[in-house]
Amino acid sequence: MIETAVLGATGYTGVELVRLLKAHPAVEPVLLCSGSTAGKKYSEIHPQFRGMVDLVLQQIRVEEIPESVEVVFCALPHGHSAETAAKLYKKGFKVIDLSADFRLGDSSLYQEWYDLEHPVAALLGTAVYGLPELNKDMIKSTDFIANPGCYPTSILLALAPLLSKKIIKTDGIIIDSKSGVSGAGRAPKQPFHFPDCTENFKAYRVANHQHTAEIEQELSRLAGKDLRVTFTPHLVPMVRGILSTIYTEPTELINEKELNHLFEAFYREAPFVRVLKSPSLPETRLVRGSNFCDIAVKYDNRNNRIIVISVIDNLLKGASGQAVQNMNIMLGLPEEAGLNYVAI
Amino acid sequence: MIETAVLGATGYTGVELVRLLKAHPAVEPVLLCSGSTAGKKYSEIHPQFRGMVDLVLQQIRVEEIPESVEVVFCALPHGHSAETAAKLYKKGFKVIDLSADFRLGDSSLYQEWYDLEHPVAALLGTAVYGLPELNKDMIKSTDFIANPGCYPTSILLALAPLLSKKIIKTDGIIIDSKSGVSGAGRAPKQPFHFPDCTENFKAYRVANHQHTAEIEQELSRLAGKDLRVTFTPHLVPMVRGILSTIYTEPTELINEKELNHLFEAFYREAPFVRVLKSPSLPETRLVRGSNFCDIAVKYDNRNNRIIVISVIDNLLKGASGQAVQNMNIMLGLPEEAGLNYVAI
Amino acid sequence: MIETAVLGATGYTGVELVRLLKAHPAVEPVLLCSGSTAGKKYSEIHPQFRGMVDLVLQQIRVEEIPESVEVVFCALPHGHSAETAAKLYKKGFKVIDLSADFRLGDSSLYQEWYDLEHPVAALLGTAVYGLPELNKDMIKSTDFIANPGCYPTSILLALAPLLSKKIIKTDGIIIDSKSGVSGAGRAPKQPFHFPDCTENFKAYRVANHQHTAEIEQELSRLAGKDLRVTFTPHLVPMVRGILSTIYTEPTELINEKELNHLFEAFYREAPFVRVLKSPSLPETRLVRGSNFCDIAVKYDNRNNRIIVISVIDNLLKGASGQAVQNMNIMLGLPEEAGLNYVAI
Amino acid sequence: MIETAVLGATGYTGVELVRLLKAHPAVEPVLLCSGSTAGKKYSEIHPQFRGMVDLVLQQIRVEEIPESVEVVFCALPHGHSAETAAKLYKKGFKVIDLSADFRLGDSSLYQEWYDLEHPVAALLGTAVYGLPELNKDMIKSTDFIANPGCYPTSILLALAPLLSKKIIKTDGIIIDSKSGVSGAGRAPKQPFHFPDCTENFKAYRVANHQHTAEIEQELSRLAGKDLRVTFTPHLVPMVRGILSTIYTEPTELINEKELNHLFEAFYREAPFVRVLKSPSLPETRLVRGSNFCDIAVKYDNRNNRIIVISVIDNLLKGASGQAVQNMNIMLGLPEEAGLNYVAI
Repeated sequence: MIETAVLGATGYTGVELVRLLKAHPAVEPVLLCSGSTAGKKYSEIHPQFRGMVDLVLQQIRVEEIPESVEVVFCALPHGHSAETAAKLYKKGFKVIDLSADFRLGDSSLYQEWYDLEHPVAALLGTAVYGLPELNKDMIKSTDFIANPGCYPTSILLALAPLLSKKIIKTDGIIIDSKSGVSGAGRAPKQPFHFPDCTENFKAYRVANHQHTAEIEQELSRLAGKDLRVTFTPHLVPMVRGILSTIYTEPTELINEKELNHLFEAFYREAPFVRVLKSPSLPETRLVRGSNFCDIAVKYDNRNNRIIVISVIDNLLKGASGQAVQNMNIMLGLPEEAGLNYVAI
Repeated sequence: MIETAVLGATGYTGVELVRLLKAHPAVEPVLLCSGSTAGKKYSEIHPQFRGMVDLVLQQIRVEEIPESVEVVFCALPHGHSAETAAKLYKKGFKVIDLSADFRLGDSSLYQEWYDLEHPVAALLGTAVYGLPELNKDMIKSTDFIANPGCYPTSILLALAPLLSKKIIKTDGIIIDSKSGVSGAGRAPKQPFHFPDCTENFKAYRVANHQHTAEIEQELSRLAGKDLRVTFTPHLVPMVRGILSTIYTEPTELINEKELNHLFEAFYREAPFVRVLKSPSLPETRLVRGSNFCDIAVKYDNRNNRIIVISVIDNLLKGASGQAVQNMNIMLGLPEEAGLNYVAI
Repeated sequence: MIETAVLGATGYTGVELVRLLKAHPAVEPVLLCSGSTAGKKYSEIHPQFRGMVDLVLQQIRVEEIPESVEVVFCALPHGHSAETAAKLYKKGFKVIDLSADFRLGDSSLYQEWYDLEHPVAALLGTAVYGLPELNKDMIKSTDFIANPGCYPTSILLALAPLLSKKIIKTDGIIIDSKSGVSGAGRAPKQPFHFPDCTENFKAYRVANHQHTAEIEQELSRLAGKDLRVTFTPHLVPMVRGILSTIYTEPTELINEKELNHLFEAFYREAPFVRVLKSPSLPETRLVRGSNFCDIAVKYDNRNNRIIVISVIDNLLKGASGQAVQNMNIMLGLPEEAGLNYVAI
Repeated sequence: MIETAVLGATGYTGVELVRLLKAHPAVEPVLLCSGSTAGKKYSEIHPQFRGMVDLVLQQIRVEEIPESVEVVFCALPHGHSAETAAKLYKKGFKVIDLSADFRLGDSSLYQEWYDLEHPVAALLGTAVYGLPELNKDMIKSTDFIANPGCYPTSILLALAPLLSKKIIKTDGIIIDSKSGVSGAGRAPKQPFHFPDCTENFKAYRVANHQHTAEIEQELSRLAGKDLRVTFTPHLVPMVRGILSTIYTEPTELINEKELNHLFEAFYREAPFVRVLKSPSLPETRLVRGSNFCDIAVKYDNRNNRIIVISVIDNLLKGASGQAVQNMNIMLGLPEEAGLNYVAI
């Protein structure tokens, strides 16, 4: 079994990584680290792991990670991840960083959107943006992955066929996304306190969410030119799932059937993207607990708009599932290894 | 006390009407009718009314409604309401029809979107569209109200200041709405079965929801010219609430402060519209159980977009609360009578 | 209008008090106090009150409460309430204390169950235990109310007819209670973080919940002898509501019909207790947002057990609604004034 | 791969079976049958299976099941299952019946509690009651399993150590159980309609739930004498999970530590029962999606009661997970094969 380590193992993405790695046929988690709870058994913090993963949590110390470990997952908060991930990479580990720290190529953008000076700006651009459906070849040959954000994953997969085939105008794209609460992390805060959060729906960070930079960078790459988008995230009273509804304008006449063919062709080789046929529409429950991204493309002929709707489980395809998919590709394992889950 | 009747008293909007009318200081519900459960006590069907409303439900027979009744609320399904409401109106009752049957002025539009021939097409255009913030004078002097739909209410209130002041372009308006499950009515169906519905988010009737015609008709009236919109409704795993996120393009340079002043001025006399100041944003929980519509207007200067976000309780301001507000105006009562609820 | 003040106005019971007092026909809230948010507008902390209650929150200073205030509600945490409530009482205000500080008559019990020395033990026994269905006469003539706990209210109302009529054995009573999450208060904590709390059910403080002392004290008073109970609380993934399932053993042969008559007779004059007839059973949704307690009594003839099931809204009949009911009685107002809500 | 078939594949237990069998390392589902949706692709009815299980659903016809199929799971409603399961058994298939039809040994009890004459009463007693922790040897050597009910599983595992070791009195046992909504099945009905079901908690079938007979039969077997219990089920607004709180009286002095040792010893060889150490308590989320049963045993020394609390996922250990566990044992596979899930 290939040995793996998880830094930041007690947050929601950490828990999901441990769960996936534990059930993976070819790898196993041998080292779990956490700043705040080191010294305790993992199953004491997350009792669902009783009898399954009873490892004692360790401090996050790069120098103490055994050489037998092949892949290190860095699931630390942004800002905290950068230096640790950089050290790991320099020491020769295969590194998959789930934070936002190595996703942007430009340190000034990082400063602008995250309000932080990047701690290791020289390394920006070193990591491969780990969206396997677009960058599989680069992922195969790198040791350093910047794992995409949850919103960007749902959006990039929905727009890639249209932008790369130049089917739509690059200006005026409107992205209306809705996320479950696990996306906000595990720390208890007032807006996520059950009585304040259930039976409630709201928008937040309207037109200034920090994922905008990542979305625009990657969409621009796909389009071959700089573009900007209007991006509005919303909070849904459920735990898991992101649905993005995306409004675009075609460059020339097209119909829904052609659009559907285009998407199917584009994702023919992608094991985790399912293109739905009309009248099926994506629902977050249909991907919950799975690594799938379900996509429907609709043509609004009354207004000449192409509307794309995509869903993912934000903790799987939007974070830890995608990280495992990247690991599989890096290690030369089957892309679906340990990820063959049907939604629960 | 002024006497009122409710036809279709056992559906969700019926229940909400009975609850509001029971607590209203100037009126009382004296007759409750239902096709399917006539003969049973109201509190037998809806036991929360035990000891409060124990009236026996009657068949829906216009000819048996006592003349002492002044206002009749018609909360029947669309298609079923038209003939009954027409008869009531002709018999001289004040009629508030909560169905969609008299909202559209054009019978061919009704046929197109509801897939039904309108049963009393000659009467179309007779009823006043009961959105008090826009049509108060007409409401004062009519005996026949077409009570607006839930989605249209949330959308019209959000766009009225912009369209009537010609601040935005009339084409390219994109409306992304999200509704709680009570909007789908009380009849149990698979998509609303608890295990299928909780922890799920989805779009439905993408770009072809039947409310589109009503939205376009009323927006066109506000704009003084025909316009079309892209409208996508979504289902949120909560009971009550609609949030609409609306994307528009300004006709000329404007900033967020000016927009906020415009909205505040527009709704200065409207007791149930609250314009939020930045950085406050609407949340459905903040209007749940109240008749308020909360609105925020944001300017996305990176893309030159005006984004308006509105919330209502779909059963109150989106249906029964608005019906009572209309009744108050028709009867010359204070507009807020019996509607002074803070969200629960 | 009679003037009232709320100390601790920003917690869940405080919010509910302000909502009820604002809509009350005979009183109004003129002073809202809060330790942590003094200086801010109430509607800034709880935006559902925008335009309805925009009072500025004040520090909690007994000496600054104007003499025109007649009733002061003390909705502070236990331990913090005692000294403030004592000062208020001594200054001559009518005081309704929603904390646990004056419910127990015995300071050693307080010390044992709350792990605190009582700050003003000399005053214990001064306050009237404000359960109107049992103690109305005492409530009428006191200026100091200890408002009952939420669990005790649901349990005492369920057992009072049986114990006071000596229908059941006083030993071996088993109480299995289930509460919504608002009972845990407004401060965000891990177990009430939405992703950890939704889709979860658990018991907590098994056989050692601090309300046990209050339950036993009041049940012993009803029974005319000391008794002990086994009490297990559970947490339900919903906001409001308590359901208690209570298992007892009859002292002699009885049937369900007789039990039902007994309960109906016992609560004939109680406007907020509804005794259900078989086969109706209580549901928390049927009292949500109302001040009702619904009770069903069942006889299990296979095992000779009497099972009583009661429901309340923990924030209404279990806290703030009952406090207003007590206020009404103290002030000589109709008992139901401002409390005529049907469940929402 | 060993071939399996599922009859009644579209209900909730059917879906869960297909999901588990699909991911199982040694078996595969080759035939899925359904009365109402035969002819459609499985993934059309349950789109989460798109690309994973696209088999066409077949009519339920015993004679058409290929001989290559080794194990048939019968997930039909009770009453409908009996004859089909009997035919399957007679044709020589290994049969695991998830209905209630073969759990009771006595046809008069079946008639009494299910209000149906048993269609193949002669076969009663033929099937082995498939609770592996108690009956593993019998399961190994049978071809016909009556898979236990969800409530009974949670209750029997909680009481087996106490009754078989004669630690508790056999009369006066009180069982207060709480179940998620998936236990009510997939057919939409009013009480499970999202707006009626969320934010609600209630008891149902108080002291007369049909599982009582099964619980009493198996507890009596454990105790070596006839016993009766008081059993009250409740409905929790969540999808999955059962928690049972069970109140018993010890026959002689005992303490919590001894009780804990007893349970640990009793379940030492049971891979799916986890005995929790104080102060840990079971939570349904900690077993959701897993086949575990978590149990805590508490001693209430104030009242001399032993309280046992157990949790299971009603669809896994309470139905389909247990069915797969039984299959593994019947086939001589490792007991945990295909069931190594950590809660999600």
